[in-house]
Amino acid sequence: MASASQPNAGSQACWWWLLKDLPEKTKNKVVNVAGKANKLGRDEPRRIIHCLKVGLALTLVSLLYYVHPLYKFFHESGVWAVLTVLLVLEFTVGGTLGRGLNRTFATLLGGALGVGAQHLAALSGEIGQPIVLGLCVMVLTAAVTFLRFFPEMKARYDYGLIILMLTFSMVSVSGYRDEDALTIAYERLLTIIVGCVIALLVSILICPVWVGEDLQRLIAANLEKLGSFLEGFSGAYCRISGDAQITIDQSFLQGYKSVLTSKHSEETMVNLARWEPGHGRFLFRHPWKQYLKVGTLARQCSYKIEILSGHLASEIEAAQEIRGEIQESCREMTRESGKALKELAATIRTMTRSTSMDFHIENSKSAAKNLMSLLETGLLEDSTTLLEIIPAVAVASTVMDIVTCTERISDAVKELASLAHFKSTISPVVTPEEP
Amino acid sequence: MASASQPNAGSQACWWWLLKDLPEKTKNKVVNVAGKANKLGRDEPRRIIHCLKVGLALTLVSLLYYVHPLYKFFHESGVWAVLTVLLVLEFTVGGTLGRGLNRTFATLLGGALGVGAQHLAALSGEIGQPIVLGLCVMVLTAAVTFLRFFPEMKARYDYGLIILMLTFSMVSVSGYRDEDALTIAYERLLTIIVGCVIALLVSILICPVWVGEDLQRLIAANLEKLGSFLEGFSGAYCRISGDAQITIDQSFLQGYKSVLTSKHSEETMVNLARWEPGHGRFLFRHPWKQYLKVGTLARQCSYKIEILSGHLASEIEAAQEIRGEIQESCREMTRESGKALKELAATIRTMTRSTSMDFHIENSKSAAKNLMSLLETGLLEDSTTLLEIIPAVAVASTVMDIVTCTERISDAVKELASLAHFKSTISPVVTPEEP
Repeated sequence: MASASQPNAGSQACWWWLLKDLPEKTKNKVVNVAGKANKLGRDEPRRIIHCLKVGLALTLVSLLYYVHPLYKFFHESGVWAVLTVLLVLEFTVGGTLGRGLNRTFATLLGGALGVGAQHLAALSGEIGQPIVLGLCVMVLTAAVTFLRFFPEMKARYDYGLIILMLTFSMVSVSGYRDEDALTIAYERLLTIIVGCVIALLVSILICPVWVGEDLQRLIAANLEKLGSFLEGFSGAYCRISGDAQITIDQSFLQGYKSVLTSKHSEETMVNLARWEPGHGRFLFRHPWKQYLKVGTLARQCSYKIEILSGHLASEIEAAQEIRGEIQESCREMTRESGKALKELAATIRTMTRSTSMDFHIENSKSAAKNLMSLLETGLLEDSTTLLEIIPAVAVASTVMDIVTCTERISDAVKELASLAHFKSTISPVVTPEEP
Repeated sequence: MASASQPNAGSQACWWWLLKDLPEKTKNKVVNVAGKANKLGRDEPRRIIHCLKVGLALTLVSLLYYVHPLYKFFHESGVWAVLTVLLVLEFTVGGTLGRGLNRTFATLLGGALGVGAQHLAALSGEIGQPIVLGLCVMVLTAAVTFLRFFPEMKARYDYGLIILMLTFSMVSVSGYRDEDALTIAYERLLTIIVGCVIALLVSILICPVWVGEDLQRLIAANLEKLGSFLEGFSGAYCRISGDAQITIDQSFLQGYKSVLTSKHSEETMVNLARWEPGHGRFLFRHPWKQYLKVGTLARQCSYKIEILSGHLASEIEAAQEIRGEIQESCREMTRESGKALKELAATIRTMTRSTSMDFHIENSKSAAKNLMSLLETGLLEDSTTLLEIIPAVAVASTVMDIVTCTERISDAVKELASLAHFKSTISPVVTPEEP
């Protein structure tokens, strides 16, 4: 990284020279966009690799045109292979495989149906032919368009349904003039298979991006963010009560916000991950849906954390003596829940069963019990009004909810560990080979 | 609807006859899918109309093949128009327009660049030509693929960027053999424009689905759901305290759940709505982003409601006498906030300014003030433990948060009303004409 920034400085000077005649506003805009591009690349270097992969795959498929023997075989229909590479090669292996399979099978089915429609139309005489063809196209596209509204179809086969319509219409409509519908269907299928194979090889062989691994990392990161918040809350809540004047650095308390709205990306990733073949520690039929379950529970926990975060912001006004009494329990509960969540995140990330989160969960539960008995023994004095205790009591109530939530997440992760055959900590850390 | 279900019964009998020889399991599956399809159509009859629209547009564009003079003009490239209709015609006008414009301009730009690349390559001699072309294709596709990672580009121009790569590769690569790259680029552009125009005409002229209107309806419905929950909560919370044994019908309390996770669909709809031209009460440059702001605030409110819903489930164990004291205030606050939210929903839906929500918000705020003074005057007796008051106090705290949240939503809706020039209630209800 450090060495890469050296030539960067040189090229920057070169860019400045190019920019120097531009008006100030344009210059700022260019610098702004360049900064964004730089950040995009640095945050996720795999993006840059992906761009190069697309360029490479396209150069490979262009050989169908440039190399004479290949051109003699494929003729102009080689252009379908070029289009296929561009349309099928996605950022992740799952995305590429899903689109490739959808495209191939939909082309096969659409081509077959198209040829069938051609034969059917040919039986109806010269005048009847376009009418029958038109009816077939209208009925099939209307039916397939309706299928696309089914949520299950939309999630996994949307692209295939579009290609099915495209191929059917192309073969049956253009076959009306070309006569040789079978050849069109066959050439299209062949070139699409060539394109898909090139896209898949490039996607899998060169720095593959497995969406399943990304999903696992996302779910683990989400649990980790919740854990960081809780640990940070534990510290901040303690410190305020010690000295109300201390300004807290709340930046690390913002991480959990992304968990609130991660539902859509989790669902998309699960849908793509299900296309991926077994690889490394992820065997075929890995229980991807269980990750969704963990993710949903984490999100429910994040709603409670959102409330806790609101309390933290308004916490300063709470009555000190009341909070002091229940503060130690809350601090213990959040700290232990936070540690448990981080342990769960590590369990998912390393795919290794661990029992240390049970210890933390037990700790947080016993702290909750302590709090309950503390509350039950009636610590209120006559002078205390309800208003003074509201903030502390509200925090205690939310924290107790979070303890319950953490336990539920732990159960879901344990289920995941047994479904996905996570390693036990006792066994030495070796990557298991595929059966 | 009633008349449509009559022939349905007849056709159902016909279907049963077709199914009767199938094994039980398959039969159940078919019935299951048919039920789902029926529900999809009934829930949103516009879906069925959309399917017919796709069929119609495709039949229209097929005329390029079937009608001889048209075929003589377009030849085989008419197939691009067929593909364009299928790829561009979306469920909503905004979607169709966005894809159509993306496709047209990207084809224009990609074609021009492709022809340019051809000329550049022609200068480098016979051996240099494929090398220069290959380099051009590789560099442009890699760069455009990188552009697709910018979130702003992804949201609005993703399809255009794909088509840009497609057209550029097609024109520059296939032009290497065909010689006449300009003709390829020109024919492709012309047929794509024909396809886009047909798709747009069908989309706008036949039962148009404006995504902007759907967005407005979604945001209003979300506020309405929150309002319904709060009103329902008000009733349920009261009833439990009256008689703890009453089982509450909580089905109407589930509606708000969809608000928790509506972020993605709201953002998608705003992106599509920005493509739509002014129509009816929606002038050009309608403040779509303000809807997003209202939606975000509604979601923040829904997190609090999620917590409240949890309290309602565990409410039965709370100490009766304590809750009785603050219950009336909470009931008042939720009822008035609920009414205010419903008024705000109506404001958005009818695009008519109203002041009645101010009345409800003032009511809820004064109820909150009452509660505060109630809490301040210290109603606790010696016998009361903290544990007994936790549920009631936690509810009170959450409800007070919700009152604040409702006021914030009201401010955002007022801003929307002034940005979008909502009608005032004083003026008679007439649809304003476009300037």
